[in-house]
Amino acid sequence: MKLASLKGGRDGRLVVVSRDLSLCAIAEDIAATLQAALDDWAATAPRLAALAAQLEAGRAAGERPFDPRECAAPLPRAHHWADGSAYVNHVELVRKARGAEMPASFWTDPLIYQGGSDDFLGATDDASFASEEHGIDLEAEIAVIVDDVPMGCTSDDAADRIRLLLLVNDWSLRNLIPGELAKGFGFYQSKPATAFSPVAITPDELGGAWRDGKVHLPLVSHVNGTPFGSPDAGVDMTFNFPQLIAHAARTRRLGAGAIIGSGTVSNYDRSRGSSCLAEKRTLEQLAQGRPTTPFLRFGDRVRIEMFDAAGRSVFGAIDQRVVPAG
Amino acid sequence: MKLASLKGGRDGRLVVVSRDLSLCAIAEDIAATLQAALDDWAATAPRLAALAAQLEAGRAAGERPFDPRECAAPLPRAHHWADGSAYVNHVELVRKARGAEMPASFWTDPLIYQGGSDDFLGATDDASFASEEHGIDLEAEIAVIVDDVPMGCTSDDAADRIRLLLLVNDWSLRNLIPGELAKGFGFYQSKPATAFSPVAITPDELGGAWRDGKVHLPLVSHVNGTPFGSPDAGVDMTFNFPQLIAHAARTRRLGAGAIIGSGTVSNYDRSRGSSCLAEKRTLEQLAQGRPTTPFLRFGDRVRIEMFDAAGRSVFGAIDQRVVPAG
Repeated sequence: MKLASLKGGRDGRLVVVSRDLSLCAIAEDIAATLQAALDDWAATAPRLAALAAQLEAGRAAGERPFDPRECAAPLPRAHHWADGSAYVNHVELVRKARGAEMPASFWTDPLIYQGGSDDFLGATDDASFASEEHGIDLEAEIAVIVDDVPMGCTSDDAADRIRLLLLVNDWSLRNLIPGELAKGFGFYQSKPATAFSPVAITPDELGGAWRDGKVHLPLVSHVNGTPFGSPDAGVDMTFNFPQLIAHAARTRRLGAGAIIGSGTVSNYDRSRGSSCLAEKRTLEQLAQGRPTTPFLRFGDRVRIEMFDAAGRSVFGAIDQRVVPAG
Repeated sequence: MKLASLKGGRDGRLVVVSRDLSLCAIAEDIAATLQAALDDWAATAPRLAALAAQLEAGRAAGERPFDPRECAAPLPRAHHWADGSAYVNHVELVRKARGAEMPASFWTDPLIYQGGSDDFLGATDDASFASEEHGIDLEAEIAVIVDDVPMGCTSDDAADRIRLLLLVNDWSLRNLIPGELAKGFGFYQSKPATAFSPVAITPDELGGAWRDGKVHLPLVSHVNGTPFGSPDAGVDMTFNFPQLIAHAARTRRLGAGAIIGSGTVSNYDRSRGSSCLAEKRTLEQLAQGRPTTPFLRFGDRVRIEMFDAAGRSVFGAIDQRVVPAG
């Protein structure tokens, strides 16, 4: 099934969305919000699935057109948002450009950072930033939303704790990153509010494209209407989602609704393009001695979407405009 | 006023607590949970204050004895938990012990990291850890809970966004920190579930001890019943809470209920003891060439509390036992 949250209140209003993203039905009789549904998933999921089946059959009470512009993020706020760097070739490339060796352990020990989860952006919300000088960049990614995960969970067991999948734009402020990482405590100001696709889906919606704990479809991004990248998310993903979850849960429990991201999707096959400007600039630097693609400016647009084998949008599009704050 | 959350459900049951911590009254007619109260603070705060006044006057309906053992964390889960390192002398000391210069910018640019906020521990919950070999340590701290904070908020304006104060034990796994920080993305596995005092208080409860955006009282910690430290939280705090909030909000909004911590409380006056074993071990290393105080073992107890000038416990005690997970 496919779920979304219409704007309204701090946690949105949960709706079930039709497979073709044309219709939705308010799910408030089952759970008022997606967080509430996740808090009691064993009880709510079968009822949400039944509503989804009614919607597909044209028999859902109160069905209405689905408009992504009415959507908040599926979880407008969450209690945990941790983002991995599962496409290690991307990390290796960025290191190479600055002449730094990548530790061999990066191939076996996932990188992960925790982001702000109190202020997520809806798929078509303007993305507002304090300054263009901060080096505004997209990062097109995939994430999973998990159920409760016990401390020390194995990756085999973690696979069974994945409830939903969604797309992410992990907005990044590149020019703040070097100074912030040099301080040793990781990202904070350099990772402002994150945006998510209109719709979150259960893994079964992907059919055979969901296997080995990965999504085997291209992640398509456009900048100002121009194709920017379409790397296959199932290729070159060194750590799959169950491994990322197990890493996150090594010393702690994760609560229902925790979101774990893949990091920037990236393929060794550079003809697939990139999922962030930083990678494109790195390739330019390696090829030409200096980057030529600028970071984003106010007024620019970024679109991120994923299509199934038949060309249908799976999650709806993240489609945002970059604007000045205030 | 003083607020707490009794265990029950994922977000607890909000109660108003008497000033002397002897009585409480369920506040569910005003807000079912503390997060719900914070989501609409302008409306709920006056009503909670009225209930608190009734409780002090012995006229609150359904008053009952207050038992910290029945408490979850005031926010059993939150949407943002960011911890600063406001006592820069502590950072300087730890660096000195490993022969590293501290950048001068650390005196003007706060360090901050984001912690897990989906699984907080109540004040008397057992603190469970995967392994003693991880180097289990306490970190006694103070934190504030804020209302909505706009992006780019000044520290002057941030002062008006502080709603509640509480105590923290920012449990840390010291032996995981060097490897994790070397990866460059900051803390993750090395910062397991955090514990909070039974009670969160409005700043006015501190009277004159709340000034300049700091709490001017000693933070008292005990390990296995032995006094460990009582540094004054108002002394040597390089960045006050409004400055930490402004730093956190530089490139993002903060949502109501976001928690911002002070970092380990530490005084230059070493006779006041420490707020974490890492600092004590550092002092031992500098004095004797090697640390002699071990990290915590299963079965150890840690107690953290703060008393007003008259010797009354302000927040109740964090009093936890260290136990193996599983």
